[in-house]
Amino acid sequence: MSEANVTRPSGRTPEQPREIRLTREFTRHAEGSVLVEFGETRVLCTASVVAGVPRWLRGSGKGWLTAEYGMLPRATHTRNDREAARGKQGGRTVEIQRLIGRALRAAVDLKKLGEYTITIDCDVLQADGGTRTAAITGGCVALVDALQGLQRERKIKTDPLVSLVSAVSVGIYKGVPVTDLDYPEDSKADTDMNVVMAEGKGLIEVQGTAEGAAFDRAELNALLDLAERTGEQLFAAQRAALGMPADA
Amino acid sequence: MSEANVTRPSGRTPEQPREIRLTREFTRHAEGSVLVEFGETRVLCTASVVAGVPRWLRGSGKGWLTAEYGMLPRATHTRNDREAARGKQGGRTVEIQRLIGRALRAAVDLKKLGEYTITIDCDVLQADGGTRTAAITGGCVALVDALQGLQRERKIKTDPLVSLVSAVSVGIYKGVPVTDLDYPEDSKADTDMNVVMAEGKGLIEVQGTAEGAAFDRAELNALLDLAERTGEQLFAAQRAALGMPADA
Amino acid sequence: MSEANVTRPSGRTPEQPREIRLTREFTRHAEGSVLVEFGETRVLCTASVVAGVPRWLRGSGKGWLTAEYGMLPRATHTRNDREAARGKQGGRTVEIQRLIGRALRAAVDLKKLGEYTITIDCDVLQADGGTRTAAITGGCVALVDALQGLQRERKIKTDPLVSLVSAVSVGIYKGVPVTDLDYPEDSKADTDMNVVMAEGKGLIEVQGTAEGAAFDRAELNALLDLAERTGEQLFAAQRAALGMPADA
Amino acid sequence: MSEANVTRPSGRTPEQPREIRLTREFTRHAEGSVLVEFGETRVLCTASVVAGVPRWLRGSGKGWLTAEYGMLPRATHTRNDREAARGKQGGRTVEIQRLIGRALRAAVDLKKLGEYTITIDCDVLQADGGTRTAAITGGCVALVDALQGLQRERKIKTDPLVSLVSAVSVGIYKGVPVTDLDYPEDSKADTDMNVVMAEGKGLIEVQGTAEGAAFDRAELNALLDLAERTGEQLFAAQRAALGMPADA
Amino acid sequence: MSEANVTRPSGRTPEQPREIRLTREFTRHAEGSVLVEFGETRVLCTASVVAGVPRWLRGSGKGWLTAEYGMLPRATHTRNDREAARGKQGGRTVEIQRLIGRALRAAVDLKKLGEYTITIDCDVLQADGGTRTAAITGGCVALVDALQGLQRERKIKTDPLVSLVSAVSVGIYKGVPVTDLDYPEDSKADTDMNVVMAEGKGLIEVQGTAEGAAFDRAELNALLDLAERTGEQLFAAQRAALGMPADA
Amino acid sequence: MSEANVTRPSGRTPEQPREIRLTREFTRHAEGSVLVEFGETRVLCTASVVAGVPRWLRGSGKGWLTAEYGMLPRATHTRNDREAARGKQGGRTVEIQRLIGRALRAAVDLKKLGEYTITIDCDVLQADGGTRTAAITGGCVALVDALQGLQRERKIKTDPLVSLVSAVSVGIYKGVPVTDLDYPEDSKADTDMNVVMAEGKGLIEVQGTAEGAAFDRAELNALLDLAERTGEQLFAAQRAALGMPADA
Repeated sequence: MSEANVTRPSGRTPEQPREIRLTREFTRHAEGSVLVEFGETRVLCTASVVAGVPRWLRGSGKGWLTAEYGMLPRATHTRNDREAARGKQGGRTVEIQRLIGRALRAAVDLKKLGEYTITIDCDVLQADGGTRTAAITGGCVALVDALQGLQRERKIKTDPLVSLVSAVSVGIYKGVPVTDLDYPEDSKADTDMNVVMAEGKGLIEVQGTAEGAAFDRAELNALLDLAERTGEQLFAAQRAALGMPADA
Repeated sequence: MSEANVTRPSGRTPEQPREIRLTREFTRHAEGSVLVEFGETRVLCTASVVAGVPRWLRGSGKGWLTAEYGMLPRATHTRNDREAARGKQGGRTVEIQRLIGRALRAAVDLKKLGEYTITIDCDVLQADGGTRTAAITGGCVALVDALQGLQRERKIKTDPLVSLVSAVSVGIYKGVPVTDLDYPEDSKADTDMNVVMAEGKGLIEVQGTAEGAAFDRAELNALLDLAERTGEQLFAAQRAALGMPADA
Repeated sequence: MSEANVTRPSGRTPEQPREIRLTREFTRHAEGSVLVEFGETRVLCTASVVAGVPRWLRGSGKGWLTAEYGMLPRATHTRNDREAARGKQGGRTVEIQRLIGRALRAAVDLKKLGEYTITIDCDVLQADGGTRTAAITGGCVALVDALQGLQRERKIKTDPLVSLVSAVSVGIYKGVPVTDLDYPEDSKADTDMNVVMAEGKGLIEVQGTAEGAAFDRAELNALLDLAERTGEQLFAAQRAALGMPADA
Repeated sequence: MSEANVTRPSGRTPEQPREIRLTREFTRHAEGSVLVEFGETRVLCTASVVAGVPRWLRGSGKGWLTAEYGMLPRATHTRNDREAARGKQGGRTVEIQRLIGRALRAAVDLKKLGEYTITIDCDVLQADGGTRTAAITGGCVALVDALQGLQRERKIKTDPLVSLVSAVSVGIYKGVPVTDLDYPEDSKADTDMNVVMAEGKGLIEVQGTAEGAAFDRAELNALLDLAERTGEQLFAAQRAALGMPADA
Repeated sequence: MSEANVTRPSGRTPEQPREIRLTREFTRHAEGSVLVEFGETRVLCTASVVAGVPRWLRGSGKGWLTAEYGMLPRATHTRNDREAARGKQGGRTVEIQRLIGRALRAAVDLKKLGEYTITIDCDVLQADGGTRTAAITGGCVALVDALQGLQRERKIKTDPLVSLVSAVSVGIYKGVPVTDLDYPEDSKADTDMNVVMAEGKGLIEVQGTAEGAAFDRAELNALLDLAERTGEQLFAAQRAALGMPADA
Repeated sequence: MSEANVTRPSGRTPEQPREIRLTREFTRHAEGSVLVEFGETRVLCTASVVAGVPRWLRGSGKGWLTAEYGMLPRATHTRNDREAARGKQGGRTVEIQRLIGRALRAAVDLKKLGEYTITIDCDVLQADGGTRTAAITGGCVALVDALQGLQRERKIKTDPLVSLVSAVSVGIYKGVPVTDLDYPEDSKADTDMNVVMAEGKGLIEVQGTAEGAAFDRAELNALLDLAERTGEQLFAAQRAALGMPADA
């Protein structure tokens, strides 16, 4: 690892994430609606609340949260087939929406939520790497808006939010650990890791994948260090967007 | 018909369309990318160009244009199932995307296009009535951008654009013909008509449907008059967005 | 428009529809079963009645009517894939069956029908243009048979029939407006319009499409005039088949 | 078995099949088109010929024959869901169309057919038991018409017909072996057997199923005797319809 | 038929089945779990019991039995597509699982079973011909285990077993009737017949198919003789595996 | 973490994996066929080789490896719907087979493989936790068998094996990090991590998920330590099964 010499395509330093923007109330119908931008990656995250839960939870007093992910056909450099037209969601889509669901369920105390189901829809308007981590970070803000709405309407009494949850992708690019990979980096990285964090709590999910050579524990640790540092910036951005005080 | 007394929910006069906004280059990867807004209805229209045509046109020297339509699950008041997750496009979706395709094929001379295929994707970010007419109007601007790109890159020599194409929905609301129905009007209109027009040429498609009582020729004509008047405003908006001179 | 010179492939005059035949009780199990023939186009229309309505109408006291359309694989010049084998209905099928459903719902007062669901199945045995308009015209006769059966069995007390509904396709063929296009005309027409009419009431649906050049209001009006004239013949044929007196 | 006392619902004697009607050229586009009626069971069988064979036969010089089966939604006492709308063919449909395909492949010398594919579509317009055996019997006549067309057009030189093929269902109804079961018998039969025969050659397929108690060899033989006797009548009907001389 | 000279690829005599092995409790979760081996053909058969029946049997007091069949992608010489990945079961699969279901329903008195549903899953680990007959034979043993479990747990009072059911494929190979065809024989047999038998009762299902030339009654009878003889060996193997006394 | 007091349901010590068995040539048709058992978890892994690669690799000189995963319906405590019958693979299945594919692609130098495609099918016969890690571990042995076969048949010249790959699930159970979770542990673990390792190289994939509370870096490191220790045992078992010398 020769950190001194690397030049990221964007000119960012290794520990520098892209500009993060979180625009609440981006659309008007959903209980939470957030446009999240990690640089050129733009994902529209909505939180929809309905009374009732899936059959296997009925009568349990517990709520449920699920997530769906989609990419507009031309969010990418070349057009991808529309999944609705092909008649099925691709493997990548399924894998990502399961990750988002697990990540955001960790943000909520489902008992306090009561028998409501929240669906987080994450639709990628423009892709430039890191869509799943942007989706988790933005989806959490939409979720908080939905939870606050439920409290404001006195449908639930206590705040089910356990902690803010955010995510970032980190990777080893030309031998150097860097944070928040954009597409040009992502497509060339040796190792790629998505890290989901709960503010003040620790790690929710770590998914690290060697893209060519295997990676070692030192590299893993360097990547996690980077992710945790970026996590602080993500939590700060979430707090700012939500008008929450700066410290948890 | 007692035009004097009607009050449209939005306060508009019968012949007044919603504010029309056309934002080009809304996303960066597509050959054409336009966010079209008819008031609160917002549709992202992209034009994607690939070399080659469907099997049945190969060797013909002619190009092809097709359209796909989708609605984000929470573009509407209550969430709709994601079509990709359900495994098929609904009947309404299929009907709409076929209309968009027919409308925009009328804008292009497929012989001049040569063996390229253009796909117009229209994805509704927020729905408030008139999504299909907004999609046609915005899709046409994305299409023009794509056609100009092909000429700029010298892939085609002559401009395949036959004429601008736009569309508006008109209907009879509380007995009065009104233009550009929004959702509160659309859900109560007696008759609803989508009119697709080619600038300076005439009508491309007329789809009028009685929602309760049948309608007569006089009503049909009143609606078409309204549509043609709004059409002029739509063509002007398209020209302004595209930086074209104001008259055809 | 030079009406004098056109020669329709069939030798018909511009305002002359094909021979219309409506054979009731073509099959024995359905509550209504009609073979409709517009010349060589032959469609079997059945009306099936079941007690109960879709979930969203339960308890409303209102009934429902829906339609499905299919084409036998070799109803056409060359064989089409069987939609059941392909695993989905094509876009054209979906579009047509939605049109038939809307058209025939206009023939029925769903409140008077009460909580029954009527399904109109229209299966094309042989296609020669105009299958959707034949389906509406024949489907209406099957529907009337089913409604009369419900009254005969004293399941409903008042006749839910609002008016007879019929449909015809009209178009501009070699510059001349002609009625009831057959396949050779349909495949070459400049403008093609399907017109659905309610007897004595007016228009139910108008779907006009430019196939090449745009069309103008004068052409639209000429086509509607033709359609209305043919409509009278269709209503007469329906009345004759049903043994109803000749005037509404 | 007390043959003396049974009364078939139709009043037929045990060895008496229903009236068999074979109407050629029932529709006009297909290379063979036959309406077959076994009493009230009515099946439209078409034979479609295309040049070329499936991938695994290309270059082999051999042809292929396949069959598809469908039932119109209201061919039966109560309406069945349309398979195209449900998105898949049911198990019964698949089983039947495989049987028809095997049966009719036995009628053809695929080497003499050359690299053509024949598709036999069997669509049930009205069901009253025995649809699969009617389909085979009628499908064979449509097949012969298609084979003769290929010879007439000099696309093939020798007649690929190996022998006529027909089929009948036989069963034990109230203890008595009877031929050509109609629906009231079929739904109550103890044992049900479909027998496919090649004229002058013997058996092509035998499918016997105990519906309640098992059956023994004597019953099996009695059923086969009946089937062979009815087979002669079926071959005679096929020959008459095709204008072939009465003996093989 | 020149029985003297034939040499079966396996060296077996015409009336000699392959070695039959039935291993109970092959897996641990199912109410019945049997690995059945007919020589190199190996099928895992499980019986799963759940309380409740399909909607159309609710309240009838009767139970239900259904079967599903699958083949691991590489159970065969060359890999077959995974049906779950292709999104549908093939025609052969559907046909086989319907046969297994019918066969094993004949083994059970559904009234005595009461409102339980038993699902027999037959998954082919290795195929060498005769997978469906092995599945029926092994599935019956799994079924008996499940029925005995229900009695042991006092969920049902009387034994619903009507009789053991087994199956074998017989065929005419190089002109000689032989029993229990393996793959090399099956792929070359002139006639192939699957025979399902109920111990001490007779025949449940007979499915004979000519693969090239038709077959005659004498051949049919020779094959059934063979099948019945092998059936005795199959019933003996089932009894031995189940620890039942040797005579019915 | 109070390692002293925990009692694993199986009585194992925290760092003790279940008994690992790898049975090669479990079935006969596949180029590699291995039954892998991690205690009561049993997965059949086959490697199938075909000449040729997917379209996007044609002419590249590189090979491809893909994996598919399935679970027999009754591999689990209660029966799961058969995915082939439901018409789609579930999200969990898709996620797992993508993991297996990535893991085993890391074991192969695709350039040395040349234009062959290897499909690894992993079918769970019996599930007791850790099916995906067992599948990777057993799938790698099947893969090595297939690669050796290609060399033996002189289809490729150099060994494409980069290194053995194995996987284990580790987790925090009742506060204590334990290795190779079985189902009773897996369903109660606080944190669950799947670790894929390349022998002598390091980590290929790390997927750690908090099931309730978040986890910290110390826990992550303790789990990775455990995984690496178990990995050595897995590599030893793979070497023993393959008859490779004990050190890499």
